[in-house]
Amino acid sequence: MSYPHPELSPPPPLPERGLRVVALGGLGEIGRNMTVFEYGGRLLIVDCGVLFPEPDQPGVDLILPDFGYLEERLDDVEALVLTHAHEDHIGAVPYLLREREDITLVGSRLTLALVRSKLTEHRLDPQTVEVKEGNHCSFGPFELEFFAVNHSIPDALAVAIRTQAGVVLHTGDFKMDQLPLDGRLTDLAGFARLGTQGVDLLMSDSTNAEVPGIVRSERDIAPILDEVFASADQRIIVACFASHVHRVQQVLEVAAKHRRKVAFVGRSMVRNMGVARDLGYLRVPGGLLIDLRDAEEMPPGEVVLISTGSQGEPMSALSRMAGRDHPIRVAAGDTVILASSLIPGNETAVYRVINGLTRLGARVVHKESALVHVSGHAPAGELLYLLNLVRPRNFMPVHGEWRHLRAHARLAALTGVPSQRIVIAEDGVVVDLVDGKAAITGAVPCGYVYVDGLTVGEVTESQLKDRRILGEEGFISVIMVVDASSGKIAGGPEIHARGSGIDEGAFAAVLPKLEEALERAAADGVSDSHALRQLARRVIGKWVSDNYRRRPMIIPVVVEV
Amino acid sequence: MSYPHPELSPPPPLPERGLRVVALGGLGEIGRNMTVFEYGGRLLIVDCGVLFPEPDQPGVDLILPDFGYLEERLDDVEALVLTHAHEDHIGAVPYLLREREDITLVGSRLTLALVRSKLTEHRLDPQTVEVKEGNHCSFGPFELEFFAVNHSIPDALAVAIRTQAGVVLHTGDFKMDQLPLDGRLTDLAGFARLGTQGVDLLMSDSTNAEVPGIVRSERDIAPILDEVFASADQRIIVACFASHVHRVQQVLEVAAKHRRKVAFVGRSMVRNMGVARDLGYLRVPGGLLIDLRDAEEMPPGEVVLISTGSQGEPMSALSRMAGRDHPIRVAAGDTVILASSLIPGNETAVYRVINGLTRLGARVVHKESALVHVSGHAPAGELLYLLNLVRPRNFMPVHGEWRHLRAHARLAALTGVPSQRIVIAEDGVVVDLVDGKAAITGAVPCGYVYVDGLTVGEVTESQLKDRRILGEEGFISVIMVVDASSGKIAGGPEIHARGSGIDEGAFAAVLPKLEEALERAAADGVSDSHALRQLARRVIGKWVSDNYRRRPMIIPVVVEV
Repeated sequence: MSYPHPELSPPPPLPERGLRVVALGGLGEIGRNMTVFEYGGRLLIVDCGVLFPEPDQPGVDLILPDFGYLEERLDDVEALVLTHAHEDHIGAVPYLLREREDITLVGSRLTLALVRSKLTEHRLDPQTVEVKEGNHCSFGPFELEFFAVNHSIPDALAVAIRTQAGVVLHTGDFKMDQLPLDGRLTDLAGFARLGTQGVDLLMSDSTNAEVPGIVRSERDIAPILDEVFASADQRIIVACFASHVHRVQQVLEVAAKHRRKVAFVGRSMVRNMGVARDLGYLRVPGGLLIDLRDAEEMPPGEVVLISTGSQGEPMSALSRMAGRDHPIRVAAGDTVILASSLIPGNETAVYRVINGLTRLGARVVHKESALVHVSGHAPAGELLYLLNLVRPRNFMPVHGEWRHLRAHARLAALTGVPSQRIVIAEDGVVVDLVDGKAAITGAVPCGYVYVDGLTVGEVTESQLKDRRILGEEGFISVIMVVDASSGKIAGGPEIHARGSGIDEGAFAAVLPKLEEALERAAADGVSDSHALRQLARRVIGKWVSDNYRRRPMIIPVVVEV
Repeated sequence: MSYPHPELSPPPPLPERGLRVVALGGLGEIGRNMTVFEYGGRLLIVDCGVLFPEPDQPGVDLILPDFGYLEERLDDVEALVLTHAHEDHIGAVPYLLREREDITLVGSRLTLALVRSKLTEHRLDPQTVEVKEGNHCSFGPFELEFFAVNHSIPDALAVAIRTQAGVVLHTGDFKMDQLPLDGRLTDLAGFARLGTQGVDLLMSDSTNAEVPGIVRSERDIAPILDEVFASADQRIIVACFASHVHRVQQVLEVAAKHRRKVAFVGRSMVRNMGVARDLGYLRVPGGLLIDLRDAEEMPPGEVVLISTGSQGEPMSALSRMAGRDHPIRVAAGDTVILASSLIPGNETAVYRVINGLTRLGARVVHKESALVHVSGHAPAGELLYLLNLVRPRNFMPVHGEWRHLRAHARLAALTGVPSQRIVIAEDGVVVDLVDGKAAITGAVPCGYVYVDGLTVGEVTESQLKDRRILGEEGFISVIMVVDASSGKIAGGPEIHARGSGIDEGAFAAVLPKLEEALERAAADGVSDSHALRQLARRVIGKWVSDNYRRRPMIIPVVVEV
């Protein structure tokens, strides 16, 4: 297997009839999926998603792919193909369109509708080309063919990209539920045909490559929901992802059966289910849906709320209900169903919500206690089917952390893909498909781009490092006023601290030491600001370390008067 | 089931021949287990552990039980029973002994040896009474009987506490491996006898009450280890808890079979395995163990390292190896086995280590990919056995978050414990066993006590709130120097910021606004520090919010000269 060398150089020029593949996100992480294909000087992008921050990226709202690689080349972009409408595949589209608004977006009906409703909020009006499974179309040198894939959102597509360099199959996210709710199967027959014709490079979803076996059918959830509903006599709240149309469909049907009305809770849930319903992806029995405000007035035993907040997001309705900070008062006898995955990193938040609701007397049903969720991603057993049907000449696992990519690479090797034609790449690593062989040829700069409030890319790694120190240890600031003409201390030193865990009164013990040190420095003729700051940092730092064994950020400030 | 009312009052005096039970930790959380029993004015404590902080308790090293309830009553303490030597049961002992050093510690041989080696580091020399299964002994009015229980550390005990108020059985942590490595079974026969005699209150480990079924045997891990060792030709590193003597025993045996030498890595691993070996709990084949430094020199294919760091602790050897910051250089072909649980909250850190090691080319085997770990806690299937054998008159689930306590309470109800005799309590809630009935009678203050560096209890909730804000948003400080005699601004305003994500140069845009506002205030005769600080906070806060949509901590400082 090929691995990226730790210190890769910029790649050589792309040979004629070579295809270049550069992921700007999604390799080495679950999220911000974005891959740029280049042929004959023209570019095609597949997906443009966001990544959600980890605890060591505090205060960050979103992480975008690094568009730096595209900066000078935006005019070469023929199209942006969106495989489906999950945030990790479409969330960064508004930010890319800020760079060039008329990039053509290519996607299925539901995908484009959901993207459009998001872009409208950003006051963007995109150019779009709607496609569906079986369609062929060309953008510059790229001939595309689309295939139906089954996933945890309807209308997802895989895309085959044909150029003179060969055929690439990019699966997008997929699984292979053989009894999907909408009857729309992952197109294995199409993949088999493509495989027979010859696939030069397969890029396939690695999210569940470590998980053995196959996934249970989405349909298997309905009987469980039915059972939970049957045993509930008070309010029922179902939390799930706001884009999981089929999950919501099943809840609606079970609710209708149990003669309960349904209200949607959460902005994205209301918006997405409106879109899905308008386009016929969600079928709502007449009179079933009511407004949240009406639901609050009805007897709890006649209502189901379908809500966002399944990941324990602190501002979500569900978290606020768990903390008794919401008009809906969860009470003994209520039932809450978390019909969703638990994304790694969210455990603490989700268990806090579960404990909060339990403490209020609710019964909380979640995926660890009942089959109320099935994954949207193919596990190892299904990935093997795909590999065997496609029989790719080269394989590149995508959409995953290192552990997922490597597990997927191993599966490919087991199905007979030659080891030297399995390429594990990272974000920014350049993979060239030349003469039928894929190989790493270099790397381009590819960092994290942080969205924080209104700014994009202004929060840097060094700012995050400061936040981590401040968050763990707090700070102590030392203010010294210096007379500019004499160089003497004219005011202070004053010591202020926040989050340091040291009571401000305690600084009385170190102040004399600092004053003495400053006097000594003055006697030695030391008066420049830099030296005084260093002095204060040293005296305070040593005192804190000796007495508290801590390392707060120490911020000496010299003000001249 | 009885739940604590949200606003409980202090309890009434304990009736004569009543037993009072107050948990100072372990109810509503996994960790800092500590329960205080009171009879006839005398106290018995069971366990005294620490809790590890969650992400919203930044910078905290440990969380202790709140000893406030004991403050005036330390002299009434007859003994402290330690059920086993895990940190969440013994970690706070040094802090309690600082309050009264001569409290008698009661525990099994291994438990006391591990506690003693910990206390020696704190320069404490405890008074101890060694007990073992089958022993009876009395401390004041408390007659104790000890029972063997099987857990993920050897020599764990359950304790029955007899007073005139009745019989309490406290299980400590336990599971029911029917083929334990040391042949020491959880004493179901003893529990059955006690049940036949009559147990008035059962307090039982709830950690795995949500998990159906029973646990696999510790023995089932050996064949898996054997398989992994057989397929490894380079270095093998096994990470597990430093107290898991039986897990280490199995690794030693498999290593010997595969003719590899073993070195321990990590201070607590070296210390605990030394104690376990000295006392005969760990049997080490002759010549098997070598020093880490020797291991570094040997061919990788002849060595096994047994290391701490299985929870992704950033300073551990394993994390440093994953980040290439350790003398041992993990390389392609190496095998790392994480033979441990994944404690909720540690996922991000653990997956980071797995990804880092994978990226270096190592094969990482963990509990999600192979049976290299079994839990130490009885799941629902085993808890039901215990409930049916003991048939308690009253039941109180312990050791768990709300979701665990409630799931355990449901199991008790299913086995026939009357609902009104099932008591779900929280830390600080007072449960009195009077006339054979357990009931909540009040609550005592019971907070979190944070250890940070050298201080205990000095880091407060308000300091943590500051840290959370600083960590998410950073801060902006505004320094104004005021002439004390004239009340006029003599220097500044100067603006400094860290972690705010705002470049210091950007403040040039707001400085004139602030200066103007200060001038206006001066013209209006406003010169007191408080008013000036408020003014600066308002001007800067509005500017940041309007331009960045963020809320850094704003710290205005007025220095008088």
